[in-house]
Amino acid sequence: MAMEDVISVDEIIEKVRLALSEGHWDEAIAVLEPLRRSDQAEVFSDLPPAQQQEILPFLTPENSADIFEEMEDEDVVDIANRMRTDSLVEIVNEMEPDEAADLLGDIPSAQAEEVLAKIDESEDVRALLSHADESAGGVMTALDVRISKDMTVDEAIWHLRHMTPESEQIYYLFVEDKGSHLVGVVSLRDLVIAKPGTLISSIMDPDPLYSEVGADQEEAAKLMQRYDLLALPVVDEEHQLVGMITYDDLLDVLEDEATEDIYRLGGVPREQPADIGVASAMKTRLPWLVLNLLTALISAAVMSLFENTIAQVAVLAAFFPIVAGVSGSAATQTLTVTVRGLALGDISPKEGIKALGRELLIGLINGISIGVIVALIALAWKGTPLLGLVTGAAVFLNLICAGIAGVIMPLLMHRLKLDPALASPILVTTTTDTLGYFFYLGLATLLIVGLT
Amino acid sequence: MAMEDVISVDEIIEKVRLALSEGHWDEAIAVLEPLRRSDQAEVFSDLPPAQQQEILPFLTPENSADIFEEMEDEDVVDIANRMRTDSLVEIVNEMEPDEAADLLGDIPSAQAEEVLAKIDESEDVRALLSHADESAGGVMTALDVRISKDMTVDEAIWHLRHMTPESEQIYYLFVEDKGSHLVGVVSLRDLVIAKPGTLISSIMDPDPLYSEVGADQEEAAKLMQRYDLLALPVVDEEHQLVGMITYDDLLDVLEDEATEDIYRLGGVPREQPADIGVASAMKTRLPWLVLNLLTALISAAVMSLFENTIAQVAVLAAFFPIVAGVSGSAATQTLTVTVRGLALGDISPKEGIKALGRELLIGLINGISIGVIVALIALAWKGTPLLGLVTGAAVFLNLICAGIAGVIMPLLMHRLKLDPALASPILVTTTTDTLGYFFYLGLATLLIVGLT
Repeated sequence: MAMEDVISVDEIIEKVRLALSEGHWDEAIAVLEPLRRSDQAEVFSDLPPAQQQEILPFLTPENSADIFEEMEDEDVVDIANRMRTDSLVEIVNEMEPDEAADLLGDIPSAQAEEVLAKIDESEDVRALLSHADESAGGVMTALDVRISKDMTVDEAIWHLRHMTPESEQIYYLFVEDKGSHLVGVVSLRDLVIAKPGTLISSIMDPDPLYSEVGADQEEAAKLMQRYDLLALPVVDEEHQLVGMITYDDLLDVLEDEATEDIYRLGGVPREQPADIGVASAMKTRLPWLVLNLLTALISAAVMSLFENTIAQVAVLAAFFPIVAGVSGSAATQTLTVTVRGLALGDISPKEGIKALGRELLIGLINGISIGVIVALIALAWKGTPLLGLVTGAAVFLNLICAGIAGVIMPLLMHRLKLDPALASPILVTTTTDTLGYFFYLGLATLLIVGLT
Repeated sequence: MAMEDVISVDEIIEKVRLALSEGHWDEAIAVLEPLRRSDQAEVFSDLPPAQQQEILPFLTPENSADIFEEMEDEDVVDIANRMRTDSLVEIVNEMEPDEAADLLGDIPSAQAEEVLAKIDESEDVRALLSHADESAGGVMTALDVRISKDMTVDEAIWHLRHMTPESEQIYYLFVEDKGSHLVGVVSLRDLVIAKPGTLISSIMDPDPLYSEVGADQEEAAKLMQRYDLLALPVVDEEHQLVGMITYDDLLDVLEDEATEDIYRLGGVPREQPADIGVASAMKTRLPWLVLNLLTALISAAVMSLFENTIAQVAVLAAFFPIVAGVSGSAATQTLTVTVRGLALGDISPKEGIKALGRELLIGLINGISIGVIVALIALAWKGTPLLGLVTGAAVFLNLICAGIAGVIMPLLMHRLKLDPALASPILVTTTTDTLGYFFYLGLATLLIVGLT
């Protein structure tokens, strides 16, 4: 199936909805069942809650578990909250331990305890539940298979066949000694192509990368990304193997990180789902706007200093949006490039000086080009050469400052161990606004008011 | 090795540089050799060109190939340009075919032809070279191993052992019929845990996802992400298996996409490396600023309409930065959430109406809260109740418009099949600026100038 043949989820949803609204469960199930599980999850989570509840009893627990694993956490919690404990237990029993722990950690603790008491792998899940959400322990899953360093290759393969691990993730096999300590890693590939009698200890990598159970999940994700790992073993304080973080979790963490950067640059300090409630959205957004308002007061104060000038030469006001706007955009360009460069590791703080030189030069060229255009516009529009000169010169000076501010602020934040994406936009815009008004009105006071 | 023990690349680079500058090749190599290959690549690409060239002859071709594969494409081309063809051939021979094709596609074609004539797998590489860079064919790599549907499990394993594939990517095995047509996929896991005599055709997934060789690489990446695939087979027009796209290529495409969104929202229309030359940076950034300048003229025109009002009540100017700034920030918040929601598929255009309702409500609450604060500030600072009223009311109205513009623009762009991240920021800021000045100065003209 190529991309063009991929199902149109919207069409499928319509079909399922229609069938359900006419009371034809069997038709709805017949549409849903042959789909791939991520498609099932997408269709299912787009159904109205009442229809979700109607359809659930007709799916097998394995199927429901697959769907739950693919759905957004919050959506699953909503559904779980409305289910009878017995049905929930059947489904949780079929889920991967880490997904089960995520779910049980999010539903009311009384309900979670009831489910925990009845599921098969309650120990595994309970162990996973004990770790902080954002830690490596919180994102890891239990290991289906461990092999011992003293096994031979055919013993290990026999062991795999015997265990028939449920998990898709056995592309790396983690090797332990008799005390359950992590001592190596073997890829499934190396296991398959090795001669049958070979000892695991002789084909394993004896110095595997790992994460500690309490480490930040982002650190673990970075390690996996940096070294292109499909799975990372997680160990406790005694270096005993307690779980692993897998590829799909890595993708989620990476997507979250990109979203976080995009949000912070856009002035939304904390990530939030697209369908967040108004109250929760306000809680992160309003304080940011108030902060913005307070910094805008600095520009307002500068503007206020020059009230006399403005009263005498009201035509000056026409160019406020241009002086502030263009420099703000230029600063945002520089800021964006710098913040993303820092996030991807393309700009080390050391290379900051080089970046500063480049952006200074860009600011200079921007300043000359845009400055001249603005001066000509002012001259043509208002017919005053002096106004053209003042406007052009202010834009020129401010674009140079914009380049400097766009590099310096994020580098400074980075040096201070703050997130450059979080604090910089507000600081950079305030700087270009304030300096823009200062240059423009200062020059106007000196040259226009002073001369007339 | 946990995250805390991961080497500090900066320190290593210092050590290597120092050793090289004192002429101690052996020391430099001794520091470099035990590192993991992505660390080697990072250290190597941060060395000055002269030192890179000095160190290269002391590395094995395998080692150099590993380093080349991990380095940024442009950096590798720089080095390759300065190498003798013989040395380059030795290294290219050890590279994965897709990486080799990427490199040869980027160096001068005369040099590429010379290398192609001398390498072992020239046919594979030549075939890969023939595809467009951004297509599935351009990003795919050659297949080390194919298995036939008529093999048994132990024959397939024997085949694997016999081929000892170089590629790490044999977690999926693609199955072909006698005519080389793609007929199925078997995961290495399923192969290993299946009973030895089983036929491949009975354990394979007979309906594998695939990409066509000419399809867009982003479509292939989306398919892999949506279905959590580690590798995707690529077929030609006759459905014959010609290669596969692997996990690491997917990660690169995803990272590029996130960067693209971040850049576009920041007013940098085309992605560029952090160390891009000034001239190339200007080519994308300056036209954007000019466009910005032209849209700012709309706000300037509105401002200009009210010159008389400003001349009479110059104190109004003090609040320009606040009226325009706060609404611009609020609009950017809404825009960011909407654009990211569209990119992640969390907001379908259908749900746009729901989003509009929510953002309208948020705009209303923002408007009341910030409007009251601004009114109080204006009153306290300038002591004029009427100015407080006008400022507060303008901010209130404009924040509601900001919420609407922040949702409508990206949805409209999306509907028009344009990238919402590209065109929206400039449109949204122009809207809030222009409306802000219009509300503020319009109200002032009616209420303050009209009354006095």
